[in-house]
Amino acid sequence: MNEFKLIEHFFKQPSRQDNIVLGIGDDAAIVTVPPASELLVAMDTLVAGVHFFEDTAAADIAYKSLAVNVSDIAAMGGQPLWVSLSLTLPNKNLDWLARFSSSFKESMQAYDLSLIGGDLTRGPLAITIAIQGFVPTGQALRRSGATIGDLIYVTGTLGGAAHALAQIKAGQCVPSEALQRLHRPQARVATGLALRGYATSCIDISDGLLADLGHILTASHVGAKIHLADIPYASSVQGFPLAQAIKLALTGGDDYELCFTLPNGTATSVIDRLQSICPIHCIGRIHGSDTGLLLMDSDGAPYPINDKAFEHFS
Amino acid sequence: MNEFKLIEHFFKQPSRQDNIVLGIGDDAAIVTVPPASELLVAMDTLVAGVHFFEDTAAADIAYKSLAVNVSDIAAMGGQPLWVSLSLTLPNKNLDWLARFSSSFKESMQAYDLSLIGGDLTRGPLAITIAIQGFVPTGQALRRSGATIGDLIYVTGTLGGAAHALAQIKAGQCVPSEALQRLHRPQARVATGLALRGYATSCIDISDGLLADLGHILTASHVGAKIHLADIPYASSVQGFPLAQAIKLALTGGDDYELCFTLPNGTATSVIDRLQSICPIHCIGRIHGSDTGLLLMDSDGAPYPINDKAFEHFS
Repeated sequence: MNEFKLIEHFFKQPSRQDNIVLGIGDDAAIVTVPPASELLVAMDTLVAGVHFFEDTAAADIAYKSLAVNVSDIAAMGGQPLWVSLSLTLPNKNLDWLARFSSSFKESMQAYDLSLIGGDLTRGPLAITIAIQGFVPTGQALRRSGATIGDLIYVTGTLGGAAHALAQIKAGQCVPSEALQRLHRPQARVATGLALRGYATSCIDISDGLLADLGHILTASHVGAKIHLADIPYASSVQGFPLAQAIKLALTGGDDYELCFTLPNGTATSVIDRLQSICPIHCIGRIHGSDTGLLLMDSDGAPYPINDKAFEHFS
Repeated sequence: MNEFKLIEHFFKQPSRQDNIVLGIGDDAAIVTVPPASELLVAMDTLVAGVHFFEDTAAADIAYKSLAVNVSDIAAMGGQPLWVSLSLTLPNKNLDWLARFSSSFKESMQAYDLSLIGGDLTRGPLAITIAIQGFVPTGQALRRSGATIGDLIYVTGTLGGAAHALAQIKAGQCVPSEALQRLHRPQARVATGLALRGYATSCIDISDGLLADLGHILTASHVGAKIHLADIPYASSVQGFPLAQAIKLALTGGDDYELCFTLPNGTATSVIDRLQSICPIHCIGRIHGSDTGLLLMDSDGAPYPINDKAFEHFS
């Protein structure tokens, strides 16, 4: 089978949306964007040996590569719609392709996505996904809108993915639930949609809370105080010495939770609605830009940020 | 410098279009599509050692990776607009990045493109570009519209890129003009735009004329007769034995010319307008599907297609 037949065989599916005029099979796909909508465009690459272990299951690679891209659209408050997949494979391993494509199609269905293009090339294993989504005009969640007094929230729990990764690297046995946190992150699409019109800023946590909250602070020209006691640590890191738990939960990354800001005084009904979608936790507050980013321990004293892993933030 | 600072330093430019609401620097770009337009979406990956030699100049890699993507939009009759760049690099070679980004920005300017996103990752050298463009609703050029009696045209000349590649592989000295054909293909955007409303089908020649015309025939459920004497052979392959010239020009690929069909009887003024943009040559005619693809020699006799390189077509 050549490239075209492989794509046809493993990936072609009926289009799931009526805004796809022409899907896979021409030089480009043709799609339409409804009136009063803006288009969100993102792209992420995962490389074997860098973003995942060479021996990671094909199904997990497919799942995660899609989730990290969907997460970018979720962080903008968008409805993800179309993906293009560029798959670079060392050889024509049909078994691997079957497992990858089966998981990829299952994940696309879960997110209500359609595959509209891409290519299959020979080379070191890598996956690039380009994704597009919609947002009503002017309602996208940006990094730049946080203002003094806003409360800082995160979805779910933090540190689970980094802990599973550390265990794998140490050759330890990792419980399957913990592995899921690393291999099968769940993009927070419903939360992103529910934040439209309420959140003043939003980002997904791919590089660790401090790095990603740092992007919000930089873009918004503000500072923040985070209360370490309020961080929703993943169950697998609870009971760890504070320094280690902080490192995993605040700098580990790969959790793909959302970090967002809400104005102080946001209606309880809004918070309740968000909580009904997935757990959210208030972890701190936006301050003036001269504050920088301060971590406060349970005694209300500043906790020093001095880890090399914080470099993204510095 | 971390990933974000590298992208900022080497790639960030003012947006060139007023349909970009938010460019590089958030989880996704925000763009708008004008009313009565459809969006074209394509993506292509180039891998070192597969699509280009490891020692190819950074400036050439940048130029070509952009051109092959723009060519996909051109083949649809679209106006290319936005690109996202995923660059995977073995190491943080700032000299290489400077040369790559300088050529990339120069090429973007030539095509009037804006970079709206992407990422920079560590790994074996590879470039993935996702591109979007506009086309007035319903006017995209597809592969599927060729009908019996249509005349088949190609832009420019064929075989130059394949010949340069063959020379490099044979360790021969390649004149710089010939090298340009391989490293610096010119996407035929203006021709694609001018074909809207006239061409019944169109494709870009990336895999070789026979393979790509084959896609038109398959999609359109028709056959074709090509007259070998009418093929516009690149100057570097003229004078070659016919079998060799045919192989390079018809199966070599990498020329990124357009192959398209026009109804017999298309007004001379249309042809003249196309010729004024770039040379076009009529090389044959669409026949019934039972014809398959026939190559006719200068005596009007069928020329056998039996090369392994024709596999894309088979």
